[in-house]
Amino acid sequence: MPIVTFTTDFGAGDGYAGAMKGVVLSLAPTAQLVDITHGVPPMDVAAGAVALAQAAPLFPPGTIHVAVVDPGVGGERADILIESGGCLFIGPDNGVLSLAARAPRRAYRIEASMFRREPVSPTFHGRDVFAPTAGRLAAGATAPDAGPSVDAIVELGAPPLYKQGGVVEGRVIHVDSFGNLITSLPAELFAVGGPAGAVDAQVEVEGTEGRFRPVFGRTFSDVSSGALIAYIGSGGQLEIARRDGSAAARMGAARGTPVRVTIATT
Amino acid sequence: MPIVTFTTDFGAGDGYAGAMKGVVLSLAPTAQLVDITHGVPPMDVAAGAVALAQAAPLFPPGTIHVAVVDPGVGGERADILIESGGCLFIGPDNGVLSLAARAPRRAYRIEASMFRREPVSPTFHGRDVFAPTAGRLAAGATAPDAGPSVDAIVELGAPPLYKQGGVVEGRVIHVDSFGNLITSLPAELFAVGGPAGAVDAQVEVEGTEGRFRPVFGRTFSDVSSGALIAYIGSGGQLEIARRDGSAAARMGAARGTPVRVTIATT
Amino acid sequence: MPIVTFTTDFGAGDGYAGAMKGVVLSLAPTAQLVDITHGVPPMDVAAGAVALAQAAPLFPPGTIHVAVVDPGVGGERADILIESGGCLFIGPDNGVLSLAARAPRRAYRIEASMFRREPVSPTFHGRDVFAPTAGRLAAGATAPDAGPSVDAIVELGAPPLYKQGGVVEGRVIHVDSFGNLITSLPAELFAVGGPAGAVDAQVEVEGTEGRFRPVFGRTFSDVSSGALIAYIGSGGQLEIARRDGSAAARMGAARGTPVRVTIATT
Repeated sequence: MPIVTFTTDFGAGDGYAGAMKGVVLSLAPTAQLVDITHGVPPMDVAAGAVALAQAAPLFPPGTIHVAVVDPGVGGERADILIESGGCLFIGPDNGVLSLAARAPRRAYRIEASMFRREPVSPTFHGRDVFAPTAGRLAAGATAPDAGPSVDAIVELGAPPLYKQGGVVEGRVIHVDSFGNLITSLPAELFAVGGPAGAVDAQVEVEGTEGRFRPVFGRTFSDVSSGALIAYIGSGGQLEIARRDGSAAARMGAARGTPVRVTIATT
Repeated sequence: MPIVTFTTDFGAGDGYAGAMKGVVLSLAPTAQLVDITHGVPPMDVAAGAVALAQAAPLFPPGTIHVAVVDPGVGGERADILIESGGCLFIGPDNGVLSLAARAPRRAYRIEASMFRREPVSPTFHGRDVFAPTAGRLAAGATAPDAGPSVDAIVELGAPPLYKQGGVVEGRVIHVDSFGNLITSLPAELFAVGGPAGAVDAQVEVEGTEGRFRPVFGRTFSDVSSGALIAYIGSGGQLEIARRDGSAAARMGAARGTPVRVTIATT
Repeated sequence: MPIVTFTTDFGAGDGYAGAMKGVVLSLAPTAQLVDITHGVPPMDVAAGAVALAQAAPLFPPGTIHVAVVDPGVGGERADILIESGGCLFIGPDNGVLSLAARAPRRAYRIEASMFRREPVSPTFHGRDVFAPTAGRLAAGATAPDAGPSVDAIVELGAPPLYKQGGVVEGRVIHVDSFGNLITSLPAELFAVGGPAGAVDAQVEVEGTEGRFRPVFGRTFSDVSSGALIAYIGSGGQLEIARRDGSAAARMGAARGTPVRVTIATT
């Protein structure tokens, strides 16, 4: 029973995600369908890439992941299929797959007619290309059946890390539905081997509401209600939250907001 | 493993959809449950009908579709079950099934006690009538077991098409979650056999923000960011979108907004 | 094929719920995953408890329910597993399970390493404790394998019922996504054995918009569009709705709003 997951920006209220599921089940009746999310903000490729990357590594080998955040549908961007880490990733070649389908990877253009539902709607490749591809793969087709291999895929640029002295600057790369800020600063920058709260680092965020310096901790309840806290999040990056509230709203921070960390030399 | 789909206006945050799923699984433990959407706007029967009609045609024969957008629950409207196109449709007889369960169809009132969970709550037939019906059908019951057949069901009126000379006027019948306008004007009105963009038609929308004349194209990326485009949508009707934005918001258009098309005689 | 359900406040747009599903499927590939809801308002433990309690009683014996509304994650509250009514309930010991996992129940702390995904993130026990627990149980582990039994769990306090003469006062305990008010007043208070509308009771709600006296009825269509109605809801409690609208918005009522009922002595 192959697993097929869905990550889209189709939102609530329409039958678009359901249409994709119907296509998959028509081709692979025993597939196990799993919704990752259909609530990616409309046309926000970077947010879709983060959502898929949060979930995909937890699935077993053989899982088929479909991601559709596709403002360029029907235009020049390619439809692609990627093998990575024993799983398959299907979607537009616009970066939405690039965080989850990590290198080393093999990518293919989806061109074979058996992977397409003709006539393909120029505005709904989710239904007419990506879902049929998932269904065929779930039913036993292999990735090279899809079409020619491609050398490179579109990758989302990771924001640069600036280092100067003991100061490292990164950026907010995602705001989750709680208003927590996920940054580009990896856990490795911090001395997290020690006891809880033993990190001697100062975090500074330049939000539209002013300059904030959350205290460093392990989890939300390390600070009092309403206070800001910086911690190593479940994805292995520095995050900033507000206990019992939204850090994004409090700080006026969003994707792209710079975050600076001063790490004490011990 | 029968497939049972769900289309409701139960929204986020409650356990109502979960209750229906529990009832189905209690009666048919191996049923494969598929969410189409639970985000239909509250009590918006027409929007629910469109969502179900977007998805249902893609499912394999034998699929059981349950739709619950039911402001008249417990009142005089009937609970019905429809056979259409090899699939089964279950819900209130208020039009929500009428777009997806196309004629020819056979309809039955759901009255048999084995299809009801007694005592039936007057405000939650989803849990106490529609889910038990789906579960029984998934477990092998047949549609005529439900109750007497009915000659007609409530149908959503399609807006009339007005034609005068080379001008055809229809209406917006649905606004999707991207803000795209789906109209009542079928693809057959347009000369879509030719190359992309070869349609010689003028589209005009009377929104609250003024009069708009989107250009005709194949897909969103045929126009520049922020521009309006008219195209044949994935459901086979004229749609109007705004690239990288919401056409509905830009134009002040909503369900019912008139859309006029002037088709050149070639 | 064990059933595993999910009730969370993870909202739309992130991959957190998907991550939990991946963990469960990695441990129990044939588990049947069912979303109850991921739309519980952020960190609203009481609302999550209500959503789970609306759905859980409808599932067959052996179902494994996971609920994650967990503002205290990684802090002093325990991770627990409860056996109740032939089903299993997994989540933080903060009350979110307490309405659904009714007494008599047996509860255990989740401490065994086979039920944890090390290193456990201090901010995401959903992925690293609750999902592995569900997966292990779905794959055949038993509840006592999790850890030591506990004598008591955190219970959500039910609001007191005040009675004086023929007047009973309770409170709104939940506002559903339609804006219907679910109260703490049980059906047993009302003479519901008679014909529809035969209840001789006066209901009074003190909202921020004034004092309201909805009429008593069976279902929404018993009153005209826009009118307020009190009725026995599908969960067996007094509810108050506005036909074709939101009672909560009209009345300025919310969780905690007092509701008084004067029952005539017949």
